Amino acid sequence: MDMPFTFINSAMSADGKISTKERKQVRISGDVDFDRMDDLRATSDAVMVGIGTILADDSSLTVKSEARRSSRKSKGYDENPIRIVIDSKARTPLDADIFIKGEGKRIIAVSGSAPADKVEMLQQKALVIKTGYEQVDLCALMKELSSMGIRRLMVEGGATLNWAMLSSGLVDEVYSFVGNLLIGGTSAPTLVGGVGFVENDILPLKLMSLEKMDEGVLLKWAVINDV
Amino acid sequence: MDMPFTFINSAMSADGKISTKERKQVRISGDVDFDRMDDLRATSDAVMVGIGTILADDSSLTVKSEARRSSRKSKGYDENPIRIVIDSKARTPLDADIFIKGEGKRIIAVSGSAPADKVEMLQQKALVIKTGYEQVDLCALMKELSSMGIRRLMVEGGATLNWAMLSSGLVDEVYSFVGNLLIGGTSAPTLVGGVGFVENDILPLKLMSLEKMDEGVLLKWAVINDV
Repeated sequence: MDMPFTFINSAMSADGKISTKERKQVRISGDVDFDRMDDLRATSDAVMVGIGTILADDSSLTVKSEARRSSRKSKGYDENPIRIVIDSKARTPLDADIFIKGEGKRIIAVSGSAPADKVEMLQQKALVIKTGYEQVDLCALMKELSSMGIRRLMVEGGATLNWAMLSSGLVDEVYSFVGNLLIGGTSAPTLVGGVGFVENDILPLKLMSLEKMDEGVLLKWAVINDV
Repeated sequence: MDMPFTFINSAMSADGKISTKERKQVRISGDVDFDRMDDLRATSDAVMVGIGTILADDSSLTVKSEARRSSRKSKGYDENPIRIVIDSKARTPLDADIFIKGEGKRIIAVSGSAPADKVEMLQQKALVIKTGYEQVDLCALMKELSSMGIRRLMVEGGATLNWAMLSSGLVDEVYSFVGNLLIGGTSAPTLVGGVGFVENDILPLKLMSLEKMDEGVLLKWAVINDV
């Protein structure tokens, strides 16, 4: 079965960090990059984040431009793409902005290890998809998303989800805005976290484009999954 | 007193890592970037690394191009720039490549906490400069290097030294080759490690240039130290 075309979009500091060690979001990019991100959301069938990002930032993941929301509506879509949280243990707060803000479908992807009472409560707010035992089975989930008609999927991090998706071979492209700042810190989250690749197992990329944007640089990479 | 003009040169993966979590060096850049790095070494008065880099990689820090070494000689310099290790506890092995390979001066920068017997042994191999109590006092060291006539200093990492130099306000520019690969890992060393900046204390940069090089991108940043 075809998997959705999947890309990661992220902004990182010049040393690869996506937030400070305290998980405080920092303004890394500028208005042009922000608008580009909004356009990517508006033109995607679904956007996906990890539970860590919801807990740290309470992101609503909505399309910010009214014109883009109207344009979606006029084509018969919801104003916002489907919003998906990878949440193995069903920890998404019921009052999270993702539930409160904006119209459109929500999917909470949980695993068999999620407490039944929490799953039940989330089912009042979202479609809950259960895959895997301890952790969400991302391959199984992606097949299910594909069968629901999701063709274009935007992954917005954080570091743990990016790692899980990339190491499962599920990502086609990575768009990375490199901002004009250094954050530093051995424990600050980076673009790709998780276990990490070992020496002979590094994931190769191909540079698609580079472009000065705002005060930084936008790099677009294709992921070479078939080596 | 004038401080040396100081720049960090590094190669990192597209997610900001300078090696795998096991501290295994990975080929991140290609021949063009390697040659550029060699030229930077050959045109610097001194190159500096942290003890972690010596212990992990046993780098000799020599100029690789014979033409560049000859050119230095013909101008009355040693074939290699002065090689400096920041080594608070005097842990540099006496048989390290930095002592064995190539001609030129070596400086081991230690602190008051370095064992006297190890310092004595290192003095057979290098000029030992002692500053600070527990850790090398980088500001004091840089003043001493300046008084020795070092005007142009290349810092080659790793993550801990880069952090220490940047957070002390001692770095003027950062040259970062971004390679076409992802390494991942929460514990893999990044371009800037250490404690890390907090939210209101992020170090700003100014993009000087971007350039496609080999299969990746060379970014040159100026550090804005006076904010």
